[in-house]
Amino acid sequence: MADAALVALAERLQHACIGRGLTVATAESCTGGLVAEAITSVPGSSAYFVGALVTYADEAKAALLGVPAGLLARHGAVSAEVAAAMAAGARDRLGTSLAVSITGVAGPDGGSAAKPVGLTYLGLATAAGVETRQHQFGGDRAGNRDAAARAALQSLVDHAERAVG
Amino acid sequence: MADAALVALAERLQHACIGRGLTVATAESCTGGLVAEAITSVPGSSAYFVGALVTYADEAKAALLGVPAGLLARHGAVSAEVAAAMAAGARDRLGTSLAVSITGVAGPDGGSAAKPVGLTYLGLATAAGVETRQHQFGGDRAGNRDAAARAALQSLVDHAERAVG
Repeated sequence: MADAALVALAERLQHACIGRGLTVATAESCTGGLVAEAITSVPGSSAYFVGALVTYADEAKAALLGVPAGLLARHGAVSAEVAAAMAAGARDRLGTSLAVSITGVAGPDGGSAAKPVGLTYLGLATAAGVETRQHQFGGDRAGNRDAAARAALQSLVDHAERAVG
Repeated sequence: MADAALVALAERLQHACIGRGLTVATAESCTGGLVAEAITSVPGSSAYFVGALVTYADEAKAALLGVPAGLLARHGAVSAEVAAAMAAGARDRLGTSLAVSITGVAGPDGGSAAKPVGLTYLGLATAAGVETRQHQFGGDRAGNRDAAARAALQSLVDHAERAVG
């Protein structure tokens, strides 16, 4: 189950979204469903949370989110370009106001000089378009996943609390 | 994060699947991604876990898993029929050997005389077809979600450990 800090962010998100009529979806790679799990741990979350696409394999990113195979081949799954396409794909396919995406190298394996363990890209798709952010987390697998989930929830909260209802 | 019992089942599942060349997907409603989160908390899970569809809203069950709207209207989202369609839809769309589905009333709200809090259906789709099971859990929201996730992982483990590699 999600830890208390994630649940507290999920509660803030729920309050902000329901008050403003916003709906949310997630597209998760390295977090593996942790953001959706935190969101749905809060009673009443079905009033704004539509669903999540946990696309662990590249083929799932293409089939479920419409991430172009060429984009994955050119930039790799852990890239700003793929994070943007994941968020846009989830928002489009689930028809939500907001969608967040997370793709990163959780570790302990899979890192490289160019893309070390902890490198994570987040995407946020809204009516205004898609923005991405790059993070370099310094934890172990569990710590990196937790930090990525927290950053994703925070970006949803920041947007939702600023949004006009 | 998933608790130790879920992670231990995920480790058993990973061992059984990788040894036999089996791949896995999940389709989650009331568990909200908890099964996928437990599976992907184990390093190396990308060798057999393809992805998850967390379909919290009925529209997501239809759009992402191909659950017929008529089936949802006739039987309700928490039913053996919908659990079977979710598991079959996930296996088909993600092209995996095995897919498990979970749909239930986690609570505290949403229960009724016919479908009380804790009522949960699991589906397991394999090459041999789809089977479903009904559970009546007696916990609170977190306890029911945890029990449903544990039962779903156990059914995957039981099948994978019996499978011929």
